[in-house]
Amino acid sequence: MSDSIFTQIIRGEIPSHKIYEDEKTFVFLDIHPVQPGHTLVVPKIEIEFLWDLDQETYEAVMSTAHKVALRLRQVFDKPYVGMKVVGIDVPHAHVHLIPFSTLNEFNDVPEPTSEPYHERLSAIAKKLAF
Amino acid sequence: MSDSIFTQIIRGEIPSHKIYEDEKTFVFLDIHPVQPGHTLVVPKIEIEFLWDLDQETYEAVMSTAHKVALRLRQVFDKPYVGMKVVGIDVPHAHVHLIPFSTLNEFNDVPEPTSEPYHERLSAIAKKLAF
Repeated sequence: MSDSIFTQIIRGEIPSHKIYEDEKTFVFLDIHPVQPGHTLVVPKIEIEFLWDLDQETYEAVMSTAHKVALRLRQVFDKPYVGMKVVGIDVPHAHVHLIPFSTLNEFNDVPEPTSEPYHERLSAIAKKLAF
Repeated sequence: MSDSIFTQIIRGEIPSHKIYEDEKTFVFLDIHPVQPGHTLVVPKIEIEFLWDLDQETYEAVMSTAHKVALRLRQVFDKPYVGMKVVGIDVPHAHVHLIPFSTLNEFNDVPEPTSEPYHERLSAIAKKLAF
């Protein structure tokens, strides 16, 4: 099986708008954001489902998600930061974090065909990086 | 400020379809499930936003969510167990866990006015409890 797109991003083989990295986790902007600041937290190990991670890696992902959510709330000044784990699209566990103000904003579905606004994403990633 | 509906459930003042409880967390079925098995994991401490929990309680909530997600997958035999944190409806932090097969099932919105099917919920809670 070939490496997942996230593994390729983590290795730097595919560029990403990176926000944070530690021993077990890697964090970058979703290039089709539901809202500005839509961020993905992924374990470096390539496992399809979050629930199948070993306990230590699962804890690392959730701990990183906590730090990033607080950072998103601070930088975007939105009342809410939502979290979603779905598991359908990419066979590499990941947690979505989405700053929002209304339920409609949280549930928005971006157009899958739209071109990523890399300049805008790059500016956001610079503000969020830590 | 009066106690949240979840605090009243945790204290047993409002009945619930309980699945699990430990020192810091309490787990019960959502009475307006998006899908059968839709479960809520809540910290016993009443804090509005998940991100504002102390680290130990946050970790306890996420650890319980992990156990419950594995349990849901096993009991319902669905390919996915999704997770959502929103934060709008009840001012007491909680994590939604939803077993599902298709993205539409995960994104379903239950009719808010529908009466809970307590008999069905009770049967599900009995199967899930641990």
